[in-house]
Amino acid sequence: LKKLFLIPVPIVDDNADTIPLDTTKVLDTIDLIIAERGKTVRKFIKMMTNTRPISDFEIIEIDEVIQNGIVDYEMLSEYDNVAIMSESGCPCVADPGHLIVLKAHQNNIEIIPLVGPSSIILALMASGFNGQNFVFNGYLSAKKDILDKDLLQLEFKVNKANQTQIFIETPYRNIQMMELITRTLSAHTLVCVASNITSTTQRIITQSVGDWKKTDMDYLKDAIAIFLIGK
Amino acid sequence: LKKLFLIPVPIVDDNADTIPLDTTKVLDTIDLIIAERGKTVRKFIKMMTNTRPISDFEIIEIDEVIQNGIVDYEMLSEYDNVAIMSESGCPCVADPGHLIVLKAHQNNIEIIPLVGPSSIILALMASGFNGQNFVFNGYLSAKKDILDKDLLQLEFKVNKANQTQIFIETPYRNIQMMELITRTLSAHTLVCVASNITSTTQRIITQSVGDWKKTDMDYLKDAIAIFLIGK
Repeated sequence: LKKLFLIPVPIVDDNADTIPLDTTKVLDTIDLIIAERGKTVRKFIKMMTNTRPISDFEIIEIDEVIQNGIVDYEMLSEYDNVAIMSESGCPCVADPGHLIVLKAHQNNIEIIPLVGPSSIILALMASGFNGQNFVFNGYLSAKKDILDKDLLQLEFKVNKANQTQIFIETPYRNIQMMELITRTLSAHTLVCVASNITSTTQRIITQSVGDWKKTDMDYLKDAIAIFLIGK
Repeated sequence: LKKLFLIPVPIVDDNADTIPLDTTKVLDTIDLIIAERGKTVRKFIKMMTNTRPISDFEIIEIDEVIQNGIVDYEMLSEYDNVAIMSESGCPCVADPGHLIVLKAHQNNIEIIPLVGPSSIILALMASGFNGQNFVFNGYLSAKKDILDKDLLQLEFKVNKANQTQIFIETPYRNIQMMELITRTLSAHTLVCVASNITSTTQRIITQSVGDWKKTDMDYLKDAIAIFLIGK
């Protein structure tokens, strides 16, 4: 292993123009792709007309490299240029790919992260909230009584430290989440919901909890949404 | 005002290929650009051969729109498509542009964030650290005795909650910061320094505090660096 490239893919399948040239041209040099999901990566490569034919690429799924949290580094050391690609957006943020990166660092391999869409950053930019201090919390608790307290805790951090709070939810639970938010948080607290980012149905709304109470939220059903509390 | 576009620019001046087509093609539709720095934006537009000549663009600096924290929304309402562009990377994260975005939300304007380089996300991807839970802290305290405690607090959050801690420093203080880190944190704590991201001198190293002690850090002098503590 000589170089480990981290290659983003579009967030929405057919949106190849969200990937810059610097990122796609690297594909020509790759000997092995570690994919979160092989199918997504094959689709992406087929769209990139300036690259080699798909049959030229050796693609394995990430589960074949990481087992029980252990990275099979031997397997990778047979290749020069390896890439990690996630199912959506930037790799090694919300997938186990970061374990491979850490292992590569331990072996003094050069790591090259490439530019592409990050729904976290796009949502933060568009929220209007403070970007000098923010937290990405991933998923909050699935237990309702704990979730109440979690949300109040996030609201407290916004008010106390002007620290923007970002989190995600499983799409089919979006509306439940918003109902809980409108019941739990103060009417004047600002909440942004950024849904279906980079798609034609993208919708990014920042308004007070009081205004969210009056908003028809059906459009959030099964949307891919990012939630932000801030000011 | 009809639409507010958030348009990233390259992190390094001459690296236009880090900006995707979806982002650059928007430039053709823009009536007014609010620039963190006019000079940087003019340079960027000149590089983008697929856009209108530079003389066609109306460009004002962000200080002309925001005075004492108040956004002059009247001025913007004379234009249809307005864009905000930062001096480096993604706008409205580490610049006051987010106040304009918030004001636009209050007026129900559509906000369209576009894809481009974010040194925070690139550093996080390449660090090998947990991306499911991370904080961007901006600048830490400039006071040495407080900074000590801040660093220990960040290390505590990494160990307790596996929450990756990201922060920045003024370039001329990078080496001082690393010296303080190596004196203050545990030898086995992992620290990543991602310097000059997307440039030809990019260097991203993740290693233990113990190993940082043995590393020649002269290369960090005046580099644009992002610091991460994680596991």
